[in-house]
Amino acid sequence: MQYRFADRLSHAPKSFLGELFRVSADPGIISFAGGLPSSALIDTVGIKKATCQVVEEDPATALQYTTTDGYLPLREYIANRYRSRLGIPATAEEIQIVNGSQQCLDLFAKIFLNKGDHVGIERPGYLGAIEAFSLYEPVIDTVPLEDGGPNLPAFEHLIREKEVKFFYGIPNSQNPSGRTYSQDKRREIAGILEESDAVFYEDDAFGELFFDRMPRRPVKWYLPDQAVISGSFSKIIAPGMRIGWIFAPAGILTRFNIVKQAADLHSNFFCQKILHRYLTTNNLDDHIRNIVTVYERKCRLMCDLLEDLLPEVSHTTPEGGMFLMATLPHGLLSRTVFDEGIKQGVAILPGLPFYVDGGGTDTIRMNFSTSSEEQIKEGMVRLARVITDLQKT
Amino acid sequence: MQYRFADRLSHAPKSFLGELFRVSADPGIISFAGGLPSSALIDTVGIKKATCQVVEEDPATALQYTTTDGYLPLREYIANRYRSRLGIPATAEEIQIVNGSQQCLDLFAKIFLNKGDHVGIERPGYLGAIEAFSLYEPVIDTVPLEDGGPNLPAFEHLIREKEVKFFYGIPNSQNPSGRTYSQDKRREIAGILEESDAVFYEDDAFGELFFDRMPRRPVKWYLPDQAVISGSFSKIIAPGMRIGWIFAPAGILTRFNIVKQAADLHSNFFCQKILHRYLTTNNLDDHIRNIVTVYERKCRLMCDLLEDLLPEVSHTTPEGGMFLMATLPHGLLSRTVFDEGIKQGVAILPGLPFYVDGGGTDTIRMNFSTSSEEQIKEGMVRLARVITDLQKT
Repeated sequence: MQYRFADRLSHAPKSFLGELFRVSADPGIISFAGGLPSSALIDTVGIKKATCQVVEEDPATALQYTTTDGYLPLREYIANRYRSRLGIPATAEEIQIVNGSQQCLDLFAKIFLNKGDHVGIERPGYLGAIEAFSLYEPVIDTVPLEDGGPNLPAFEHLIREKEVKFFYGIPNSQNPSGRTYSQDKRREIAGILEESDAVFYEDDAFGELFFDRMPRRPVKWYLPDQAVISGSFSKIIAPGMRIGWIFAPAGILTRFNIVKQAADLHSNFFCQKILHRYLTTNNLDDHIRNIVTVYERKCRLMCDLLEDLLPEVSHTTPEGGMFLMATLPHGLLSRTVFDEGIKQGVAILPGLPFYVDGGGTDTIRMNFSTSSEEQIKEGMVRLARVITDLQKT
Repeated sequence: MQYRFADRLSHAPKSFLGELFRVSADPGIISFAGGLPSSALIDTVGIKKATCQVVEEDPATALQYTTTDGYLPLREYIANRYRSRLGIPATAEEIQIVNGSQQCLDLFAKIFLNKGDHVGIERPGYLGAIEAFSLYEPVIDTVPLEDGGPNLPAFEHLIREKEVKFFYGIPNSQNPSGRTYSQDKRREIAGILEESDAVFYEDDAFGELFFDRMPRRPVKWYLPDQAVISGSFSKIIAPGMRIGWIFAPAGILTRFNIVKQAADLHSNFFCQKILHRYLTTNNLDDHIRNIVTVYERKCRLMCDLLEDLLPEVSHTTPEGGMFLMATLPHGLLSRTVFDEGIKQGVAILPGLPFYVDGGGTDTIRMNFSTSSEEQIKEGMVRLARVITDLQKT
């Protein structure tokens, strides 16, 4: 039978992620293509203990329906961390719990975008955001992301000339590029936005994962009422719980709450209580220090091997996070490297889907958090062989 | 600052649920207004055991990202239950896990509805569906729901004359009315739909909760490719986990999967594994029999007290589920009964928000699952006093 689907589906980019997950599941393939935090760094002992405490103490409450905004003590914990870590006067009333950062993308687009509205993103931009936004049929405008942040004249042009509803960016260790905005750029961006009514949407999945452990001041610091931040426990505690949040001014959060309720009533309450218990009975800073130490070593290893084995491949130099981006030698297509890589037992992610307007065909995103150091060494040898062989043909 | 929100927000009905939750939290008020399953019937011992097993055995996997469609063994369990309980040849490939039935409403509307499209629902219709659908700006057409199912001539007119993309209904113990479609009506509805390309969306949150424990044949039995069923563990295991599913033909499910991925990547994996462990190590039928026995007793009690204390109030006679609907004596408004009830320590839910086209101002929805028998007795005495007093004024 023929189904009469909505027009928005024709705007959905054909997703690469399904293929990726299948590839990642093949144990013979070393994958730099995915975006999983290291399973070895999930504190299963601590989470187990917190889980047992929650099911012992008041299981019926944790297993019952709750309010849409989320578990108040968890929201207070999150607000308090913004105050202590970044000096931002956040309150629990400005925090709404969601199912990981991805749900923020969907619901934020839902409250702002009419069909045909303009929205700004980085180029390259985060694939999950492109997928979520596209379903609301906006015009997606891009600003080139360079070392140090978005190209300022292009950003200024976008904000002044297009009536973008919001600009979405990942200032800290961006996915896919691994780039971080400089502090100056953040201030300048805020200055440009201040003269418009465009909102800045900072996706901060990686802000806790800087190798130097120094927090960066968000754009919201300069524009409290004109910016929101989305955060997530996926990269620092456990993605399988699907718990993230949005930190937004009341004028936005009341609308966000309406669409969150319509979307799924509330996020998993059981895991909200477990997370809160875990966070208040463990030292989060120590745990994050462990993660960062390992990720920094893996990132250095991957960069060093790239430079040693593939000197013609240029790459970004992440200050944190889980990804770097590499540019292939002249003439080589990342899709070819992907296809050949699979045959040789190594997966990379072609940059193409991160460019809504085409381009990026010679770029690849590489993840350094999932694989072990041994896997990174072996995977880089395989990748070097693939690229070297392709250059000969 | 003024935010430029999307037009769809102006279509969102002003929700009553926030007010409800606040009311329910006041321990002095006996609430028949909410829709919570009985906390006393959540098998906290069994869930605790299943939880401990999952965190013991392979916690890192359960806490990591997974695929969008959901945990395969859980999907196989669900498919198998359709086969054994209803004789429908379901397979795991036709099941997608979501965050409770509510997420199905949002994502299903998202794949089908353009702005201005027609969609059919029952009158009165489920508030959560009205809220979810409204955000896609459709025209919502209604068919009167009577004892035994939708009014057939009106249903036929709707399907033949309006080009509805789908009809949404709750054939088993409907929320808010407590009504159940007769088997004949289901077959006749299927016959009418068969000559159109409208899809039937059966929300089956309550199908396991029939007092006589007899499963009813769904509309999908007659129209395998033209109907979907959404199900949920919220009413039979635990709502706080937010785990439900959609059972749909492949042609619909592939699109559903795209929007689910864009919405939040996947549902909570940890709880999917806990639920699967619970379901495969406990006797679900025995557990459901316990629930149904208690709910049937409470429902009878509420109906008997209504008839004894308020003979001028008419009411539906549920065959299962958690709700009944009552019609107030001539001239009395349910909103007045709500306001006066709060003062007297009893909450009911005015029927108005279940009628998209107005009307229903003399109806109230009453929940019998949440309160204890003692609370039902005391609450009904309070409600009788409120209504009797209002009739005197």
